[in-house]
Amino acid sequence: MTICLPFLFFRLISMITNAQVKTITALKEKKFRERSGLFVVEGRKMTQELIKSDYEIEQIFACKEWIEDNKILVASLNKIANLVVEVADRELSRISSLSTADRVICIVKQRKTNEVEWQTNEKKLVLALDDINNPGNLGTIIRMALWFGVKDIVCSKDTVDCYNPKTLQSTMGAIFHVNISYTDLTEFLFKNQKRNIYGTVLLNGKNIYKQQLQNDGIIVIGSESHGISDKVKRFVNNPITIPCFAPSNEVESLNASVACGIILSEFRRTIF
Amino acid sequence: MTICLPFLFFRLISMITNAQVKTITALKEKKFRERSGLFVVEGRKMTQELIKSDYEIEQIFACKEWIEDNKILVASLNKIANLVVEVADRELSRISSLSTADRVICIVKQRKTNEVEWQTNEKKLVLALDDINNPGNLGTIIRMALWFGVKDIVCSKDTVDCYNPKTLQSTMGAIFHVNISYTDLTEFLFKNQKRNIYGTVLLNGKNIYKQQLQNDGIIVIGSESHGISDKVKRFVNNPITIPCFAPSNEVESLNASVACGIILSEFRRTIF
Repeated sequence: MTICLPFLFFRLISMITNAQVKTITALKEKKFRERSGLFVVEGRKMTQELIKSDYEIEQIFACKEWIEDNKILVASLNKIANLVVEVADRELSRISSLSTADRVICIVKQRKTNEVEWQTNEKKLVLALDDINNPGNLGTIIRMALWFGVKDIVCSKDTVDCYNPKTLQSTMGAIFHVNISYTDLTEFLFKNQKRNIYGTVLLNGKNIYKQQLQNDGIIVIGSESHGISDKVKRFVNNPITIPCFAPSNEVESLNASVACGIILSEFRRTIF
Repeated sequence: MTICLPFLFFRLISMITNAQVKTITALKEKKFRERSGLFVVEGRKMTQELIKSDYEIEQIFACKEWIEDNKILVASLNKIANLVVEVADRELSRISSLSTADRVICIVKQRKTNEVEWQTNEKKLVLALDDINNPGNLGTIIRMALWFGVKDIVCSKDTVDCYNPKTLQSTMGAIFHVNISYTDLTEFLFKNQKRNIYGTVLLNGKNIYKQQLQNDGIIVIGSESHGISDKVKRFVNNPITIPCFAPSNEVESLNASVACGIILSEFRRTIF
């Protein structure tokens, strides 16, 4: 974890001013997150993962219980920059976007990640997300990517913001341990068109269970409602499909994050 | 589709009374759904799947566009029991639980399913859900069960109601094509203890990718926060685990519905 000087908030206050409430609440919106380069992390579990990561924390607002449970940590944080501010429970509720505030709320600097590049001879799997617009789905995909050891995620510009509060909660903290970049997906795929580019398609996809899947390349995941867009689909040189058991008139598609989980599992199963 | 006489609502009205609004709104709550034996289905896609199924419809409230798009269907429904009532858009919004009402809302009879029984020599997979309490997760699991041809789902009594509005929406209509029962899960497993009972456990589970999985038995899925409960776990005679690629301090678990998808895929992959 890198610590930088907080510039947005006064230190060691126990009351949160209306202006601060307004600032923090505004961070629920993408526009304001982009403008400030900040985002909000809520709750004990998420904060625990945040602290293990190399994200920069601007400020931590916490209730007495959290501060007492994390005495050594708080002392070391405050030694450097008075990062932790104790606030009353009702103050925490004012800035929380959860139905019940979970003891601690952090203001954190977004981490810009460069687009994925391969080192010489490096073999790795990269996830490319094509306009995933459901915040919960994106969060679940990030969580699962980490589970299967996929650390690089490239998102199209219309994919939902990974610092969206719902997305963050669904990652269960996994977001702090993967690299996420937003870019023009067609340009990224064009640059990497000589690699294996896998993608699920409805027509002419090969049965995923019968393929020799290479753990080196890019897996494109499309949105649940529209699948992979046409402009992205033309770069998919390994079209795959997850076969369906149900009569075709009974079920149309799998949830995007579930499909992604099945695909990642299928890539990794021979390695274990 | 079986059609029965509507008893709750007047027929061919174009205004919805306050009492009706109250009744329909109350169906958002489990207590009232249980008491009335009814539930609400919203939107075009869900209604389309409902009509293909053998669920009994009590009443359909629809706007002009939906009725015009489904002329033949409406004529045949109204011939028997004046099932379809045309209402104005603003009327539909009054009873909808969606942010934007999607043209049609149906009042439907719940379908009680008997506990799963095996016919002589029948080989099948059954899902047993142990206290799945997230409505969205339950819906996704139902949708995916259908995809993988698992038609029987046995839920513990503390599993969230499958007619919960959020669950219904997440099933994307798959709910109308599977059999769901709620029962004492330990009793059900006790009765079937000679079958293969699979379940994911954190300790001593065998690597799922290295098992000979039998497509005949019961797969127990535990809740995301608590896993499989101890009282259910003692019936699991085939403990399995999905191996994790990430360092153990970075990720703790997979989303319950994603884990379920990976397990079902692993059972079915050799069949395709």
